[in-house]
Amino acid sequence: MSTNLRGILAPALTAVTDNFQIHKERTLAHFEWLLGDGCDGLLVFGTTSEGNSFSVAERRRLLEDAVDAGINPQKLFVGTGCCALSDSIELTKHAVQIGCAGVLTLPPFYYKELSDDGLFQYFASLIEGVSNDRLRLYLYHIPPIAVVHFSFPLIERLIAHYPGVVAGIKDSSGDWEHTRQLIERFAKRGFDVFPADECTLLAALRIGAAGCISGTANVSARLFQTIYTSWQIAEAEVWQTVVNKVRQVFLGYPRIPALKAIIARMRGESAWKNMQPPLLPLPESERAGLFEQLTDAGFDWPALRGRELL
Amino acid sequence: MSTNLRGILAPALTAVTDNFQIHKERTLAHFEWLLGDGCDGLLVFGTTSEGNSFSVAERRRLLEDAVDAGINPQKLFVGTGCCALSDSIELTKHAVQIGCAGVLTLPPFYYKELSDDGLFQYFASLIEGVSNDRLRLYLYHIPPIAVVHFSFPLIERLIAHYPGVVAGIKDSSGDWEHTRQLIERFAKRGFDVFPADECTLLAALRIGAAGCISGTANVSARLFQTIYTSWQIAEAEVWQTVVNKVRQVFLGYPRIPALKAIIARMRGESAWKNMQPPLLPLPESERAGLFEQLTDAGFDWPALRGRELL
Repeated sequence: MSTNLRGILAPALTAVTDNFQIHKERTLAHFEWLLGDGCDGLLVFGTTSEGNSFSVAERRRLLEDAVDAGINPQKLFVGTGCCALSDSIELTKHAVQIGCAGVLTLPPFYYKELSDDGLFQYFASLIEGVSNDRLRLYLYHIPPIAVVHFSFPLIERLIAHYPGVVAGIKDSSGDWEHTRQLIERFAKRGFDVFPADECTLLAALRIGAAGCISGTANVSARLFQTIYTSWQIAEAEVWQTVVNKVRQVFLGYPRIPALKAIIARMRGESAWKNMQPPLLPLPESERAGLFEQLTDAGFDWPALRGRELL
Repeated sequence: MSTNLRGILAPALTAVTDNFQIHKERTLAHFEWLLGDGCDGLLVFGTTSEGNSFSVAERRRLLEDAVDAGINPQKLFVGTGCCALSDSIELTKHAVQIGCAGVLTLPPFYYKELSDDGLFQYFASLIEGVSNDRLRLYLYHIPPIAVVHFSFPLIERLIAHYPGVVAGIKDSSGDWEHTRQLIERFAKRGFDVFPADECTLLAALRIGAAGCISGTANVSARLFQTIYTSWQIAEAEVWQTVVNKVRQVFLGYPRIPALKAIIARMRGESAWKNMQPPLLPLPESERAGLFEQLTDAGFDWPALRGRELL
């Protein structure tokens, strides 16, 4: 039985200062809260984390700070996919050396309409550049943002060349049919498929998904965890209905700013709303509407231990 | 009269080793050859240069090597647009400190469907982060690859806030109507518009373009220079016809690999064909066809001084 990290993972939000630096204390407090409030693990520097909006040095430093602060690296996947091969190698080596559970790696996303041969060359060069058997590399499939994507034949080829190392995929296609095919084709062979759309959580778990890595796990991990651990029972469908209603609300707002607005409210720290350019904070005028719609949808407002906010 | 760099600029190819490092000697020899063979200047680390496929450290080092080797930084634009604001600031500061004529800056290209407000915030933060009156920033508009683009209102706003600093644009939209509108709206106000499509060179010069920054200037700068300096005379149209025919040939091949194959042939250095992943060299099987079609189209094969190759 593989010991690879599975379950509910949040692509953890990154707190930033008014001067667009990573706010270390706020970010690490959020990591710790998530790990104590429903998350089996975290994705550090995913899309929801604004990962690509920070330099390699900024990314290395935060990861080291997290481990120094006592966060177990075996609970962490790290986003390491950059446009420059040397950057991806550096970040991936660093994550493995520090003991992280795995890396979630975007395809190089500057050039478009790339060939499978070119993408294979990139990933082969990355894996061989890192050259470490402990590497667990997860493919980060997110065509709505990266545009570049992983075809089924490319996935087959990567698994065949690097069995055990190429360990899974996060599917942010937003297309259930695609997620379903990924699970049916690859999951039985020990390749872990993590859907990103929490609306498909229950259906995906029932056919063999490894868990879920969804942006909204930053504020809803407890409920996702309940579904993850109890998907066999009928009541899970009731919980899934709540998840779906809440998701509908999020669809009406820019996702990452909305999540940061919720954390800002939970913690009573308005600076949590800060975004790294080119993304912008949720406008003040939209906050009340978001909060009200979430409550109406049955949103389980996150709270700090010993401090109810609603 | 502004002393800003204008004319025919090549987004200079970057030679890479078999191990995906920048080959310094080959690259600098190419820079020197271009500046002696029709180019008024170079764009270092543009799209054709595979600029985003190299790390910040690799990019800084090559630029320093170029200046150390005696290349006049006042002949250089530098590509500095990254996804991470801190990377763009670092590269832009470095280019200004080293004395480069300007920077050509992509919008942050990871997230898509960005607001003009978010892009303005990014560029304002970049310009204020660099904080140097010598900065000449050119916008790198290349929606077919970056997807994120510069709207006319955003350009207006950037010019209004940073007059003289926001100095121009390279238009790689591939849409003549867009290029025409850019020139007509902005060129008279001292904002330099460089089309990327050499098929529009003559037409663009006649209405006020500042020159041309096209990938194929790596192999055709002499001819482009002839049109640039003689666009008022009737014969320019004959030269433009040749340019157009050659462009048609390039449309049938992956552009950057084809350009590297031509330089490899000219120099008799087969390693010039190397590409940085995820791009791949032109397949051997396609080389002869490319070369034959170029010759048939009237391509003026580039040559090293004192060494004719055809």
